[in-house]
Amino acid sequence: MATYGLIEYEQASPEVRAVYDDIMATRQIDWINNFWKAIAHDPATLRRTWESLKQIMRPGALDPLTKEIIYLAISATNGCGYCIASHTAAARKAGMTPEMFGELMAVAGMANETNRLVAGYQVEIDERFKT
Amino acid sequence: MATYGLIEYEQASPEVRAVYDDIMATRQIDWINNFWKAIAHDPATLRRTWESLKQIMRPGALDPLTKEIIYLAISATNGCGYCIASHTAAARKAGMTPEMFGELMAVAGMANETNRLVAGYQVEIDERFKT
Amino acid sequence: MATYGLIEYEQASPEVRAVYDDIMATRQIDWINNFWKAIAHDPATLRRTWESLKQIMRPGALDPLTKEIIYLAISATNGCGYCIASHTAAARKAGMTPEMFGELMAVAGMANETNRLVAGYQVEIDERFKT
Amino acid sequence: MATYGLIEYEQASPEVRAVYDDIMATRQIDWINNFWKAIAHDPATLRRTWESLKQIMRPGALDPLTKEIIYLAISATNGCGYCIASHTAAARKAGMTPEMFGELMAVAGMANETNRLVAGYQVEIDERFKT
Amino acid sequence: MATYGLIEYEQASPEVRAVYDDIMATRQIDWINNFWKAIAHDPATLRRTWESLKQIMRPGALDPLTKEIIYLAISATNGCGYCIASHTAAARKAGMTPEMFGELMAVAGMANETNRLVAGYQVEIDERFKT
Amino acid sequence: MATYGLIEYEQASPEVRAVYDDIMATRQIDWINNFWKAIAHDPATLRRTWESLKQIMRPGALDPLTKEIIYLAISATNGCGYCIASHTAAARKAGMTPEMFGELMAVAGMANETNRLVAGYQVEIDERFKT
Repeated sequence: MATYGLIEYEQASPEVRAVYDDIMATRQIDWINNFWKAIAHDPATLRRTWESLKQIMRPGALDPLTKEIIYLAISATNGCGYCIASHTAAARKAGMTPEMFGELMAVAGMANETNRLVAGYQVEIDERFKT
Repeated sequence: MATYGLIEYEQASPEVRAVYDDIMATRQIDWINNFWKAIAHDPATLRRTWESLKQIMRPGALDPLTKEIIYLAISATNGCGYCIASHTAAARKAGMTPEMFGELMAVAGMANETNRLVAGYQVEIDERFKT
Repeated sequence: MATYGLIEYEQASPEVRAVYDDIMATRQIDWINNFWKAIAHDPATLRRTWESLKQIMRPGALDPLTKEIIYLAISATNGCGYCIASHTAAARKAGMTPEMFGELMAVAGMANETNRLVAGYQVEIDERFKT
Repeated sequence: MATYGLIEYEQASPEVRAVYDDIMATRQIDWINNFWKAIAHDPATLRRTWESLKQIMRPGALDPLTKEIIYLAISATNGCGYCIASHTAAARKAGMTPEMFGELMAVAGMANETNRLVAGYQVEIDERFKT
Repeated sequence: MATYGLIEYEQASPEVRAVYDDIMATRQIDWINNFWKAIAHDPATLRRTWESLKQIMRPGALDPLTKEIIYLAISATNGCGYCIASHTAAARKAGMTPEMFGELMAVAGMANETNRLVAGYQVEIDERFKT
Repeated sequence: MATYGLIEYEQASPEVRAVYDDIMATRQIDWINNFWKAIAHDPATLRRTWESLKQIMRPGALDPLTKEIIYLAISATNGCGYCIASHTAAARKAGMTPEMFGELMAVAGMANETNRLVAGYQVEIDERFKT
């Protein structure tokens, strides 16, 4: 449903359309997913979120696939259904194989497990890890 | 402190020592970090956790550095101080540069931000993202 | 569905009805939302939760709208779909405009982002912040 | 430190003292832990939290030890250091052995792991589980 | 839907079937729930998760019902809908009454509340709670 | 400690100094807190985070105090010690009284409690709350 509905391209203001156009051009696609249409009710958030995402997800010291994999692992940790669905699609498009997905989920599950063992057992940081 | 204290190698039972030995041999190091010494109070958990971690973190479809990066991103998401310190050390040892760290944290921060925008705006999954 | 089903007013015990009546009188409405009907299976929890909520959400040093805004921001952080839907309705009724919603979500998103940057970079508390 | 400092018994208002007295009488102890002294700055929260906790933690369909174990498992899940320390002490006092602690942490770790596998793999609820 | 679909017994590899057979034999049931069918795409994760779960959930210092109750409390804390549904079913099968459920949820709710009061008020650990 | 140490003004690059200068000018203060000095190792993240925060926290449909209160409530929910300390300071500077703090924490605690009751009881969204 989305709290205030979705803003389709046709009904969008020039400001919102400019962001939609840049999303489609950057990603080389011809449609906009619901996330952007939902937050378009707040053009400042739409623009800032897109500009940040574009800057963060582009190739750098980490390649785009690794970045999508991190995004997916965190979305699973936070239990965000939409984010898992959309970033699974994005990661596959960037080259994620089923084997990679299996391994990333195994790491994500294990990290969530040991994070709690550490907390529950009240483990203190080893001197060697302090830098 | 650790809830029941730390079990040092010298005082460890043969069962616990066997795990400690395997950790040191596998990682090619000569010391055991506090996490293992704390959970050694429950030898079943010590063995199972180590066997799982060893299996999960070895090279596969994803390389060890990528796996450490995922581990670190999740530990930051969960706010586990010990885990952040120990996996930052592990990731650096596996080749993580400061630039990679900066980018992984940027992705982790952004994922945590958009996960909440999605929830708050009640965004529904696009048909195209299903399956 | 709700784990044990919903307890409607007609089938409710006098103890449960008394709480339902107070909810409707306090909120000046003529219906009970599913949350209360679901937890009514445990009358002690129903009563305690309602009494606490009534006390906490009434006007005080913070006005009811600000309180609903906080409730909504936390529900988005926790990814609780029902809570987001019900508190968005409550916040709107209390006067939340679309602009306010956009800003509260922007703050909520940002807080979730920087909370993780702080953790990941292992930032220590400045002396000036200690009081 | 605690945001507004700790309110000691000697400096406490009669309202706060009455809660402190009830905590000590109910728990049969002669001291107050920091949590209560910190929230005593808001007497309404102090009273409501204590009354709720007293009602919830008393023997019922679940015995006090089981309740402390649940409290501890959740505190480890949320990474609340203070809560882990205080509820470990309370659980031990209620009879928790090191073996019980080991098993509760194993369950807590596993639950946190599979919760994420379920999310990441986008598993749908089986019809048989719907009731 | 599940990311890569569900692997039914008929189409499963011998390796996956062996795990399915052990799940059904151990639990004395004649069907496999969706969680296992979804993660079966990664046989290593399927086997490791099942072996760990089997070891962790069997009777020990804590009985199986207590373990299911902990699992359920954590799944509610993490907001994992599937996990809540499946572990509610498992807990009921193990003997959880509606009264027990009511009390476990009351404890879970309260723990989540006080975990945040502790954090927000910046409460420091009492000396008596150390060790 | 901070993963890569803190970058002080004196050692900062012109790019980092420009952000530090803008932070001090905008906030009318003469020092930089550790958060910025820690993330300054990644100038792109420093600049983007500051620009976003500056835009988000300025007066709009919500006043700065309300925004700081939301920030604090979320930081307590996430258990971020540094964030709680720094935003408590910021909120006080913006006019938060002890009474306001007490009420915001009461709301934050309650929201975290009912978010879990809703999940655990598997409450479905009322038709009236849709849209």
